[in-house]
Amino acid sequence: MAKLMECIPNISEGRRKDVVEAVVDEVRGVAGVALLDYSSDESHNRSVITFAGEPVAVMEAAFKVAKKAAELIDLTVHTGEHPRMGAVDVIPFVPIRDMDMAECVELSKQLAKRIADEIDLPVFLYEESASAPHRKNLAAVRKGQFEGMAKKVEEEKWHPDFGDNRIHPTAGVVAVGARQPLIAFNINLSTSDVEVANKIAKIIRESGGGLRAVKAMGVLLEDRNVAQVSINMCNFRQTPLYRVFELVKVEAARYGVSVIGSEIIGLTPMDALADTADYYLKIENFDKHRQVLENHLL
Amino acid sequence: MAKLMECIPNISEGRRKDVVEAVVDEVRGVAGVALLDYSSDESHNRSVITFAGEPVAVMEAAFKVAKKAAELIDLTVHTGEHPRMGAVDVIPFVPIRDMDMAECVELSKQLAKRIADEIDLPVFLYEESASAPHRKNLAAVRKGQFEGMAKKVEEEKWHPDFGDNRIHPTAGVVAVGARQPLIAFNINLSTSDVEVANKIAKIIRESGGGLRAVKAMGVLLEDRNVAQVSINMCNFRQTPLYRVFELVKVEAARYGVSVIGSEIIGLTPMDALADTADYYLKIENFDKHRQVLENHLL
Repeated sequence: MAKLMECIPNISEGRRKDVVEAVVDEVRGVAGVALLDYSSDESHNRSVITFAGEPVAVMEAAFKVAKKAAELIDLTVHTGEHPRMGAVDVIPFVPIRDMDMAECVELSKQLAKRIADEIDLPVFLYEESASAPHRKNLAAVRKGQFEGMAKKVEEEKWHPDFGDNRIHPTAGVVAVGARQPLIAFNINLSTSDVEVANKIAKIIRESGGGLRAVKAMGVLLEDRNVAQVSINMCNFRQTPLYRVFELVKVEAARYGVSVIGSEIIGLTPMDALADTADYYLKIENFDKHRQVLENHLL
Repeated sequence: MAKLMECIPNISEGRRKDVVEAVVDEVRGVAGVALLDYSSDESHNRSVITFAGEPVAVMEAAFKVAKKAAELIDLTVHTGEHPRMGAVDVIPFVPIRDMDMAECVELSKQLAKRIADEIDLPVFLYEESASAPHRKNLAAVRKGQFEGMAKKVEEEKWHPDFGDNRIHPTAGVVAVGARQPLIAFNINLSTSDVEVANKIAKIIRESGGGLRAVKAMGVLLEDRNVAQVSINMCNFRQTPLYRVFELVKVEAARYGVSVIGSEIIGLTPMDALADTADYYLKIENFDKHRQVLENHLL
């Protein structure tokens, strides 16, 4: 059973397809790494690239993405709706299999050092890799964006973790860090009353005193006239899918509302589904890493 | 996403560890194949080897297993409790990912031909590969065992599908075929009354007019004093785990009995768990092959 790490760099280019392809090609060229997905948003002028594989190979691919993006993307002429501070804006490492967070953090620091040394691009460590609590949240690190960053990195509080206290003239700065996999999990209700979804969202989310590592809000699916609890599962090992699903059912019942379905948007690690099956089938002593056939082939 | 096939040859040696290791080494030596498990039973004098990988590589490993077993195992001096007819007794191919049964059947026929041609070992095709309905069931094919096989293969009804109408003098004959993955799934009840487990087993199994591709019987777990419905799921795509689990709950309720847990013995394909999670979370339009991260790395 091999270690498996995921990486989801965001680059500040979503319009010039040739540039996006040139950056994505860097991932395609690394053995031991599988390109899972990439998509561009024109109004954000930003692309998200997802790949996974053997951790050291993933780190190599992430470095090449950063180098190519810094070569081809000039933040001094970049416009777009999404906040950004660098040509490669953020590089998260995510442990998927057989590795713990500490190992991902260590690799993120190795990558950060190499990016600063070889591309001359200053790096902030964020999330689990952050060197101080105030640097954990990406939005706080990115505040001021590219345009304000030259001044920001001169403040002692915001000196980069690697590299000099000045930005790269065209590529800005980048945030590198380790975090848990994120699952976008939405639960649809038998009502069109978005207030019910909002009330449930408030109860289940961590910020409302609900479940750890859960973010949630109510939305209305206008085409279906269905109220939805839209959820980010930020740590499915801490708070599993079934717990959120069952709690939403319980809270919905108070309004005479039931759950009509759910959605998983994008990718989910296999373990999140295996944990769900394990719970509902009450499987005794299930060892998903040994007993799931495909795990022996990864 | 790569094709994935499993193979579970049974060889008629469970006592001489050096012989078992020599046969298993043949699997270890084939690139593109992962050895998942192997175990020997001394009283049966039989070993089960499980491996999986790229289909053509799996076929190559299966051939090597057959050849080595025929070299090292002499059925004229074999004793053991389990019925057997050959040094390598049976070789099932099982489709796991991205391949259908027809493809597995075709590969099983290629293997059968090669075994007959190069090892001079006659082959019966069985299960999905069977050339006639009376050859589908392995027990029917094996009836008479090694000792009766020399005479049996002379009957027109039992001429081998490949090779001559005479057995290999020491290695006998072998059954080769394709079948669905089998999941050993047991459900534990809140009673020690094995009669309740027996009644439920009768209702849910195919032979009692219950669910397709389900075999079941009641057993008593003596160490725990727990009655269990012991189930073989012979085609989890046709009858999924959740359906059996929920039906057992419903039938148990009639006796005031509840389900206290379940067990999966040995391996299960990932899809069986993904289907279970999909059902209980009511996921809309879930595409497990595209949305499960690890599927992109297999």
